[in-house]
Amino acid sequence: MRAAVLRDGHMVCRDDVDEPVPGPGQVLVDVRACGICGSDLHFAKYGDEVVSLMGQLKGMPTRGVTVDLSNDVFMGHEFSAEVLEAGPDTDAPAGTLVTSIPVLLSAKGFDTIGYSNTLLGGYAERMLLSAPLLVKVPNGLDARHAALTEPMAVGLHAVNKSDIDRGETALVLGCGPIGMAIIGALAHRGVESIVAADFSPKRRELAVTMGAHQIVDPADESPFDTITPAVVFEAVGVAGIVDDVLRRAPRGSRVVVAGVCMQPDTVHPFFAITKEINIQFVLAYDPLEFAESLRAIAEGEINVAPLITGEVGLGSVGAAFNDLASPGEHCKILVTPHG
Amino acid sequence: MRAAVLRDGHMVCRDDVDEPVPGPGQVLVDVRACGICGSDLHFAKYGDEVVSLMGQLKGMPTRGVTVDLSNDVFMGHEFSAEVLEAGPDTDAPAGTLVTSIPVLLSAKGFDTIGYSNTLLGGYAERMLLSAPLLVKVPNGLDARHAALTEPMAVGLHAVNKSDIDRGETALVLGCGPIGMAIIGALAHRGVESIVAADFSPKRRELAVTMGAHQIVDPADESPFDTITPAVVFEAVGVAGIVDDVLRRAPRGSRVVVAGVCMQPDTVHPFFAITKEINIQFVLAYDPLEFAESLRAIAEGEINVAPLITGEVGLGSVGAAFNDLASPGEHCKILVTPHG
Repeated sequence: MRAAVLRDGHMVCRDDVDEPVPGPGQVLVDVRACGICGSDLHFAKYGDEVVSLMGQLKGMPTRGVTVDLSNDVFMGHEFSAEVLEAGPDTDAPAGTLVTSIPVLLSAKGFDTIGYSNTLLGGYAERMLLSAPLLVKVPNGLDARHAALTEPMAVGLHAVNKSDIDRGETALVLGCGPIGMAIIGALAHRGVESIVAADFSPKRRELAVTMGAHQIVDPADESPFDTITPAVVFEAVGVAGIVDDVLRRAPRGSRVVVAGVCMQPDTVHPFFAITKEINIQFVLAYDPLEFAESLRAIAEGEINVAPLITGEVGLGSVGAAFNDLASPGEHCKILVTPHG
Repeated sequence: MRAAVLRDGHMVCRDDVDEPVPGPGQVLVDVRACGICGSDLHFAKYGDEVVSLMGQLKGMPTRGVTVDLSNDVFMGHEFSAEVLEAGPDTDAPAGTLVTSIPVLLSAKGFDTIGYSNTLLGGYAERMLLSAPLLVKVPNGLDARHAALTEPMAVGLHAVNKSDIDRGETALVLGCGPIGMAIIGALAHRGVESIVAADFSPKRRELAVTMGAHQIVDPADESPFDTITPAVVFEAVGVAGIVDDVLRRAPRGSRVVVAGVCMQPDTVHPFFAITKEINIQFVLAYDPLEFAESLRAIAEGEINVAPLITGEVGLGSVGAAFNDLASPGEHCKILVTPHG
């Protein structure tokens, strides 16, 4: 079976991967589409650091993700798929189009799908999912659009955590997929003033399509020069951005950090203290937000079609990673194993 | 008139300061006691940086504090005082013991008392206050205890901002005056599990007096090894602490940064993102919290007496600053200009 794997920092396509066999409660599915996530690009580039930081991390309720970078890593956690076959004592009708949070339940507990030496991810022809976690794709929604359930849920969660009121001004820094998901969720919530900033004209245009009311090119001016946001969504994930936000943001503002900066970052606490800024770091979503994300997409309340700017087969995942490394031209590239 | 001033990084006592003259709405007061604040020590040491950072700061509703370090700086913002004389068209009975938030109103707007080349602070025999901001010290409370209204209000504000529930565990890192004020406010709120950490045995003992239920010597073990706090109060204000908290704190915990770190600080956003940590930076208090702080002290609900570990005259402010630079022996030193 074919799967694209991370090997020595690059995505390569293998055709000798063992067919996965569903255990009790598991389901074998045929991957229809899997989005390439910015976290995947980060992991390909900074895997060593991520593994090292994971090792230092305390205070987590579960065992961390342990990945051996000297072996192939299976990736891909934004997928839609069709049920092929249920495991023993498991009920799941073949032919159903589904999606799922990227978690696999087993007798040993649960494992995260997406960064594993053993567990297949969505960059594969087939993979295993957990029957209790399957969410059926409704309304005849296109499998490629259903694959955006996961990244759009990330935006929904960030907006929920911000607890923003409709009358408050939101500033979204960075219009990559996460920024777009945040803009979509803000518009869906009815926030009346959504300002988006990105250096790329194409991304700024896309931000308007997703619901931004005003766009700013940071090369021309700082968005803080003209607007006074109540909530700033940081969706760039590059060192230095947070400190600049702390320096410029209004007194008492809330900063939601959704961009995943893997490097150490330097800030001036003085700026944040003087202005009593609140920083909420966010990650992922809960299962209800995931389901709500799919519902909103399937009902046409959030239109994800414009976000899909490319589609590649398993043999071209590496090339797509390279394309995405220079942002501006792309938003979401989907891997369609049978495309 | 005599006043201790900051000159070339050191506190020196002058005896040639002009007598202040109260304008309309202002009151001339006789300073009874003024606490030495950690921020004053920071400012004496890192004044250049503070002034530079203030210059970079945007998003503030008012003009910043502009201080010329090449001239003498008047300091002292934790004071109690006796009314001597009211300005024109102003009503304030002489002989009344009062305190006030450190702000002076004038026809030009308002100015902060405590870091100024022109406006006297509490390290002086006499100073000006604003009649509308005066709070009368009730219950015959000792003027020295009333001088702790301000730092205790800082702790009350930090605890209010944390919105901690009584059943949640609070961890207070650092048992200097701010840490003590936080512990006092937590105990006053009825929080049932207050854990305090400090390297100094004397400070740990004082933390118990203020209401801590458990104390930890960080030299022996990390407090995070044995407890799972819902809210972490950072009251150390030294670079590196916040990153260590982000690394060790439980998933979903709230971190309240009350320690004022004046230097750039390096953090790993990865830790905070993975655990969805919330950081609330806090500064000062509002006027109601200030009044509540005085009330709680005057009613005996918070006992500030043990916090006062020293008392000096205006001529010894410089020596007291030096003593406070090596923490562990002292908590709050009061300057009593007529002591």
